[in-house]
Amino acid sequence: MSTMRAVRVVGYHRNLELTEVPVPEVTGPFDVVVRIGGAGVCRTDLHILEGQWAEKSGVTLPYTIGHENAGWVTAVGSAVTNVAEGDKVILHPNITCGLCRACRSGDDVHCVDKVFPGIDSDGGYAEFLKTSARSVVKIDDALEPADVAALADAGLTAYHACAKAARRLRPVDRVVVIGAGGLGHIGIQVLAAMTAAEIVVVDRNPDAVKLALEIGAHHAVVADGSQVEQVLELTGGLGAEVVVDFVGEGGSTSQGVRMLRQAGDYHVVGYGENIDVPTIDIISAEINFIGNLVGSYNDLTELMALAARGLVTLHTAKYALDDVQTAIDDLDGGRVRGRAILVP
Amino acid sequence: MSTMRAVRVVGYHRNLELTEVPVPEVTGPFDVVVRIGGAGVCRTDLHILEGQWAEKSGVTLPYTIGHENAGWVTAVGSAVTNVAEGDKVILHPNITCGLCRACRSGDDVHCVDKVFPGIDSDGGYAEFLKTSARSVVKIDDALEPADVAALADAGLTAYHACAKAARRLRPVDRVVVIGAGGLGHIGIQVLAAMTAAEIVVVDRNPDAVKLALEIGAHHAVVADGSQVEQVLELTGGLGAEVVVDFVGEGGSTSQGVRMLRQAGDYHVVGYGENIDVPTIDIISAEINFIGNLVGSYNDLTELMALAARGLVTLHTAKYALDDVQTAIDDLDGGRVRGRAILVP
Amino acid sequence: MSTMRAVRVVGYHRNLELTEVPVPEVTGPFDVVVRIGGAGVCRTDLHILEGQWAEKSGVTLPYTIGHENAGWVTAVGSAVTNVAEGDKVILHPNITCGLCRACRSGDDVHCVDKVFPGIDSDGGYAEFLKTSARSVVKIDDALEPADVAALADAGLTAYHACAKAARRLRPVDRVVVIGAGGLGHIGIQVLAAMTAAEIVVVDRNPDAVKLALEIGAHHAVVADGSQVEQVLELTGGLGAEVVVDFVGEGGSTSQGVRMLRQAGDYHVVGYGENIDVPTIDIISAEINFIGNLVGSYNDLTELMALAARGLVTLHTAKYALDDVQTAIDDLDGGRVRGRAILVP
Amino acid sequence: MSTMRAVRVVGYHRNLELTEVPVPEVTGPFDVVVRIGGAGVCRTDLHILEGQWAEKSGVTLPYTIGHENAGWVTAVGSAVTNVAEGDKVILHPNITCGLCRACRSGDDVHCVDKVFPGIDSDGGYAEFLKTSARSVVKIDDALEPADVAALADAGLTAYHACAKAARRLRPVDRVVVIGAGGLGHIGIQVLAAMTAAEIVVVDRNPDAVKLALEIGAHHAVVADGSQVEQVLELTGGLGAEVVVDFVGEGGSTSQGVRMLRQAGDYHVVGYGENIDVPTIDIISAEINFIGNLVGSYNDLTELMALAARGLVTLHTAKYALDDVQTAIDDLDGGRVRGRAILVP
Repeated sequence: MSTMRAVRVVGYHRNLELTEVPVPEVTGPFDVVVRIGGAGVCRTDLHILEGQWAEKSGVTLPYTIGHENAGWVTAVGSAVTNVAEGDKVILHPNITCGLCRACRSGDDVHCVDKVFPGIDSDGGYAEFLKTSARSVVKIDDALEPADVAALADAGLTAYHACAKAARRLRPVDRVVVIGAGGLGHIGIQVLAAMTAAEIVVVDRNPDAVKLALEIGAHHAVVADGSQVEQVLELTGGLGAEVVVDFVGEGGSTSQGVRMLRQAGDYHVVGYGENIDVPTIDIISAEINFIGNLVGSYNDLTELMALAARGLVTLHTAKYALDDVQTAIDDLDGGRVRGRAILVP
Repeated sequence: MSTMRAVRVVGYHRNLELTEVPVPEVTGPFDVVVRIGGAGVCRTDLHILEGQWAEKSGVTLPYTIGHENAGWVTAVGSAVTNVAEGDKVILHPNITCGLCRACRSGDDVHCVDKVFPGIDSDGGYAEFLKTSARSVVKIDDALEPADVAALADAGLTAYHACAKAARRLRPVDRVVVIGAGGLGHIGIQVLAAMTAAEIVVVDRNPDAVKLALEIGAHHAVVADGSQVEQVLELTGGLGAEVVVDFVGEGGSTSQGVRMLRQAGDYHVVGYGENIDVPTIDIISAEINFIGNLVGSYNDLTELMALAARGLVTLHTAKYALDDVQTAIDDLDGGRVRGRAILVP
Repeated sequence: MSTMRAVRVVGYHRNLELTEVPVPEVTGPFDVVVRIGGAGVCRTDLHILEGQWAEKSGVTLPYTIGHENAGWVTAVGSAVTNVAEGDKVILHPNITCGLCRACRSGDDVHCVDKVFPGIDSDGGYAEFLKTSARSVVKIDDALEPADVAALADAGLTAYHACAKAARRLRPVDRVVVIGAGGLGHIGIQVLAAMTAAEIVVVDRNPDAVKLALEIGAHHAVVADGSQVEQVLELTGGLGAEVVVDFVGEGGSTSQGVRMLRQAGDYHVVGYGENIDVPTIDIISAEINFIGNLVGSYNDLTELMALAARGLVTLHTAKYALDDVQTAIDDLDGGRVRGRAILVP
Repeated sequence: MSTMRAVRVVGYHRNLELTEVPVPEVTGPFDVVVRIGGAGVCRTDLHILEGQWAEKSGVTLPYTIGHENAGWVTAVGSAVTNVAEGDKVILHPNITCGLCRACRSGDDVHCVDKVFPGIDSDGGYAEFLKTSARSVVKIDDALEPADVAALADAGLTAYHACAKAARRLRPVDRVVVIGAGGLGHIGIQVLAAMTAAEIVVVDRNPDAVKLALEIGAHHAVVADGSQVEQVLELTGGLGAEVVVDFVGEGGSTSQGVRMLRQAGDYHVVGYGENIDVPTIDIISAEINFIGNLVGSYNDLTELMALAARGLVTLHTAKYALDDVQTAIDDLDGGRVRGRAILVP
């Protein structure tokens, strides 16, 4: 049995450990083994190390971390027909059963029997990862795994929310994007590609809103305490038809609701605080709160189509596997511009 | 100028007053004057008298109360083409402009310039009421104004929520109706007529859930503290695809959310407490909260189609205009079965 | 290797042959072997024997015919998790790949790599049939395979079309069902269960329209040459919002289009003649022609939910496998009421 | 009574006549009089002169022609609240009742009591036109009536079809636009603004497809007899998810259907020939034919939002009212690039 290098969680509140482990092998008919070309370093990884996911995931330590992965197929099970050795792929973060009603409705994220590599089983901070035929999306020749890996989870979440929001947006409508960070940055590009609505971006960081204007936003609002008033002024005093909230903490939701027009949709993406709104306000303005989890497999194919045509791009900072601790520290210290990517 | 009897709000925390006022006359091109055949006595009327709506409505006292009205057309303005003198009609509770985007999208409830007779102008506890051509729905010969008046607002709200909920309900799905009182009672009939989903009704009152089974519910749950567990048991431990909450107070919403399946819709209709849910729960279960106001004009025509075919019926207790105080007292004292109706 | 009895196509324009063949065995990870409890005898089977499908299906003779099947699971492959030996199941007519975009969108009927047992490979006029985990739907304890087998294809097609049509039908709308035979009979029950629209049935056979009224239709029109006028009279001269045409030949479509209201949907289900309509009529009335193939796997689960609750029922005439030629002859001679079912 | 100059139809197969007629005056509460700033010269106008619309419209000669109009409000009726004297407006081609179900559903094009100025009553080849409050859309300061007038009907039709088509288009999908002339030119811009699907344009004119690539199309196909094969090659042999056919004659539809993928939508916009397709092809490929008339009032507001932001532009050739015959002759002779506009 050959071995490979992998970065593993060996205990909570401890550093990750780079060690040798066996290379995963095909054992089931739908197994796909992928040589990792890039693995995104995500804030969730910090939370895992803090033990926040220990109970929820039920994972047994030690295990290999990393849930935003892309690379090249190296081996496939007997029943795999959609990819072959050598194919360049991005990995949907979930392994799903394919047989439950959710899976059969295109809504595989709600699979009743899903596995989440990097969270509850071995993930992608490693040279190789085992996933399923149902989780691999072939990517365009023009794309490189290390460049798109971060779209596998963070990008996919932003795509899912914004593509869902886009369905009701007409050219006369306005959509407010709260938060122009990693996800918001992708979300703005998705909205610009898929709708003709006016996009208003709200962020505390003047540089972030400035950048947002360059990638498709039409109006920039710096969240300096007057953001609600600014948005109302931009929307004729009535508010926006849709708000997509990538922040979800620090008072974002209560402010965001005040930016919303009657009969508007409030998309919850970022999380941290509670939605805490009087039912009388919900019914008298007839507003909706729409939850958003990561996107489906089909969503990921759509996002890759946008990426292949240059409609969604992402700035990345690449690190060798040996430098994983530096990547983690840089992320924790706010020193990463765009997304940190491990390149084994 | 001829006069008529009308029941008026003359001050908050005071009894209503039955008095003589001028009969309303056609002055504008779209005016329609209706002789009232029935006016529903609604819990909102109690709240008006308590002053709860004083600021919100901005109404000037004294004025005629009553916002659930049906009757016969007695006069029409020069531009009215859809009804004529003698027509039997039910009145949509709002008078809307017809020119704003909401009105032109079939969503007239969100008209930017609407009037609400009985709330912010003279209503229907009277012999005659002036409304607009845009607010009158002709009803079937088989229906009588006094029998359907309560469908104009309470029934229309229930119809709107349940017809909206029905759009995603498939024959394999379950919908939980919380509250089998006035609105819930209509809602169950609407769901039974418009969907093939299984209907689970939850109410504290054993008689109410028993009645619910007779009018279309498939499963009855008495809210004795174990209602969440009972619903989960009925839904394979996963919860229902849709919850329609006609209560919205007393802990209803936090219990109701626990009855909801992943990717489910929570329809807010009843009000009183706050929706107070962690954003992480909203995104990880990917659930939606859907606000519901009263229905549109088109909704009212659809509800009247159901009523004409006997698919929605309502028990009423009729009172003469002279007995308005008795009606109010009976409602306040919980002595009305079904809906109290004033018949001038 | 054990053997079983099977009815096979041994040549076109020749009688079917009952013979001994090997019992199918599990060879792939997703294989499911089913002991047949009932197999519907369908008009398509007559067309197969006439050679009409020879080129289209590319099937190699001899092979076992029969594409409407239900029974009990007797063996499953290593990766099958959704059914187990002994489960009572109905079979979706297609075996689909599960990996193409259509399969992953809940639209598996458009799978780019599907197999159709009974048409292009061995089917269910036999004691056993091999299918896939993706094609088996567990049925309710209250249902028997021989009673529901005909819902697997004919019923599923009717369900699919009517459930799709139902999405736009409101309580004020009318839907015309052309053809109250096998499929139309199911379609009317589906519409009655899933919508509150008024159902108008049109058929040449006075007994068929009479029966239609008993199972949910509101208006019956005997197609005696005046059917267009009768439908227009029932619809205020404007036509119906939706027409579902289960006939599709003998002038049905040109008559049906005249029954359709502006902005209406014409559902094509039955086939034979051409849709031949001037584009100016299509655009000036802004009508739509909607194609309908058999339903998806999810559709079949929904139809089984209706069947389990008694909302869709079907009259059947059962035949032993030995009497297959009688069944075929009875069908060809118009002597079957409801659906002929082979019970091995 | 003051008079104005107007171009009138005085007989079929005769030239138009420029004459003096009374300026229209406000007589009803919803009347709006507009000073014409631009009136599009449309191929339909040629057909009117040939008598093709005589019976259909029932118009009484002489009358003023012109159904694509924009200008400035000069007078309003007593009940008009949405525009005022001096407002710059574009005119929806229909005057609708506002009270029928179609009008109240945002689908005013199917109003049961509509008037069509320029077709069945006095239109806009004149200094002034009388329309209704329901038909005027205020336009952005940046837009000029003469520049946008042609969007009132031709552009609105293209917008309506493409915005409807866009609802199902995902970033992985392809849409074929047949015909890159006046309507197609607008349609391509609308699709580019509202979707992220790949746009394939098909036209006989190499210059037209070249221009199409500049305004948003991704692939250009010259219709040289091999257009079906070219489109199939561009779509992996499977065809496009959507075809929008702006031609509808000369064999366009039979070719277009061959470019359509299984479960695809064929949008009929251009007209002339018949849709003539075997029902078996419609059901086995499960394709849809979608009719498209002119857009609604709301569609027009949306198109004006696109125009105001420069996302839809149109080349125009302007003519004085005195030169109306030249304009007509130029159009008839194929000498107009873009759209001919009369500027009174």
